[in-house]
Amino acid sequence: MRFRLTPREDSYYDMFADSANNLVTGARLLVELIADGADREGIAEKMRACEHAGDEFTHAIMRRLNESFITPFDREDIYRLASTLDDVMDFMEAAADLVLLYNIEELPRDVIAQVEVLERAAELTADAMPRLRGLRDLSEYWIEINRLENQGDQTYRRLLAELFSGKYDALTVLKLKEVIDQLEAAADAFEHVANTVETIAVKES
Amino acid sequence: MRFRLTPREDSYYDMFADSANNLVTGARLLVELIADGADREGIAEKMRACEHAGDEFTHAIMRRLNESFITPFDREDIYRLASTLDDVMDFMEAAADLVLLYNIEELPRDVIAQVEVLERAAELTADAMPRLRGLRDLSEYWIEINRLENQGDQTYRRLLAELFSGKYDALTVLKLKEVIDQLEAAADAFEHVANTVETIAVKES
Amino acid sequence: MRFRLTPREDSYYDMFADSANNLVTGARLLVELIADGADREGIAEKMRACEHAGDEFTHAIMRRLNESFITPFDREDIYRLASTLDDVMDFMEAAADLVLLYNIEELPRDVIAQVEVLERAAELTADAMPRLRGLRDLSEYWIEINRLENQGDQTYRRLLAELFSGKYDALTVLKLKEVIDQLEAAADAFEHVANTVETIAVKES
Repeated sequence: MRFRLTPREDSYYDMFADSANNLVTGARLLVELIADGADREGIAEKMRACEHAGDEFTHAIMRRLNESFITPFDREDIYRLASTLDDVMDFMEAAADLVLLYNIEELPRDVIAQVEVLERAAELTADAMPRLRGLRDLSEYWIEINRLENQGDQTYRRLLAELFSGKYDALTVLKLKEVIDQLEAAADAFEHVANTVETIAVKES
Repeated sequence: MRFRLTPREDSYYDMFADSANNLVTGARLLVELIADGADREGIAEKMRACEHAGDEFTHAIMRRLNESFITPFDREDIYRLASTLDDVMDFMEAAADLVLLYNIEELPRDVIAQVEVLERAAELTADAMPRLRGLRDLSEYWIEINRLENQGDQTYRRLLAELFSGKYDALTVLKLKEVIDQLEAAADAFEHVANTVETIAVKES
Repeated sequence: MRFRLTPREDSYYDMFADSANNLVTGARLLVELIADGADREGIAEKMRACEHAGDEFTHAIMRRLNESFITPFDREDIYRLASTLDDVMDFMEAAADLVLLYNIEELPRDVIAQVEVLERAAELTADAMPRLRGLRDLSEYWIEINRLENQGDQTYRRLLAELFSGKYDALTVLKLKEVIDQLEAAADAFEHVANTVETIAVKES
């Protein structure tokens, strides 16, 4: 019989994977939300539940971190990875929330492209988390996230130009801009997650 | 005769209490500021003095932290607690400042509810700081702050809906929204203070 | 023959100086950009190149930090100094970018004063970085940066008052305010750099 001295240490990887899989759920809810004829109230409620689940994952990681003497990476990197994953969810939930709060009827078409970038980034992130265990094959992940973020940035800029083209009145611009800014912040936050993973990989390798 | 090796170590608690009591003063100035017929110039001046006093308390904590080898909690938590207390004051002062800068005649009524949440949060925070010494009876504090922050969030959302209801022109919406956003940021910052206290209590207990 | 145990340790100072000199280049590009009859497209392209160069300097510092066991100051302070220098460039580049994206024809005159504050702050910062080595004569630097930031703050407030004076329509206010906010954020970021230098000087002296 073999005793395990640090019985549940691996579970950080599982907790990060849970948190990232939850982002996939959230991003898919955003895709549904902006589709024509969506049940927006129903989807927004699922989004809030998704955000609460994300908070639970984050707290579980923080609690474990506070109780652990031994951690697989630097404590500050675990803290930062959990926080940046949490940030993504907060921005996605805020965007969904504002669509309902402002009762926005119609979003510019490029918002679809913006949300698809988030969905793809969430999938890549969820896919990468289990590879943290061996710190292998992670560079393609962060390179692809950087590429996606640049693509999202182009879309964001096209959207800003459209908002200020004279097609919308000032109050509508204010409302749409807040939604679009939250989605852009979510894309940036995925890049912060990837930067944190890169930092961990560089340090530990 | 007994030598004290760490002669003034307890004073961290006093310094945090000073900083939090200063937030009570600031929140009460906000309550005065938005009352009908207030001497806004005079109150704004007191607010600036209050913010300067807050900066002094923050610097005193940071200076002590840089000079100390032994600290009652993790250095990073002391740093974070001082910073988040300072953030609250900065947001409150910014809100007061914008009311004057934009020469805002009339604020929506719900701003009173928003400011009362800040006053209550400040009182609870000032009340909790001395209990850091024994790390006792703190959970009721952070639970109540979280409840207040949720309540403040509901008020904030009602205010946003009112702003965009068509009742105000776009320039007025821009101005009012900035004030309301600063007050909401102050409420969030009180929650960050409470989260930091929770982290300290969990780690040290 | 003398062996050097930490052969390239000094190069942190060189890297910080590179990063700060790059801010001087960026600030001067901003001055050019807002001059009458400027080749805005050409200058914006140089600005993007400048921002990329800044990223390289930041990454070089971070990489070195991850590989070093011995550092001239606390790791967290090196990290923070590199990050805050990087923030300044990001805000300056964002401001330049928005001027073009929004196709802003005419900026309020006080923007010139705002940008001149950035140029002066960049020069002072570049001048101070080599003095980190001996930690000498740095207090005049951070005092002067604080003075400049206060001056910038006055200009920013005058600009806000002008924006909301009724002279501009709401969409123009939205666009101009974003540019002015980025410039103000750059001025604040210079103050964060100076605060970090002060922290290092106090700790190490």
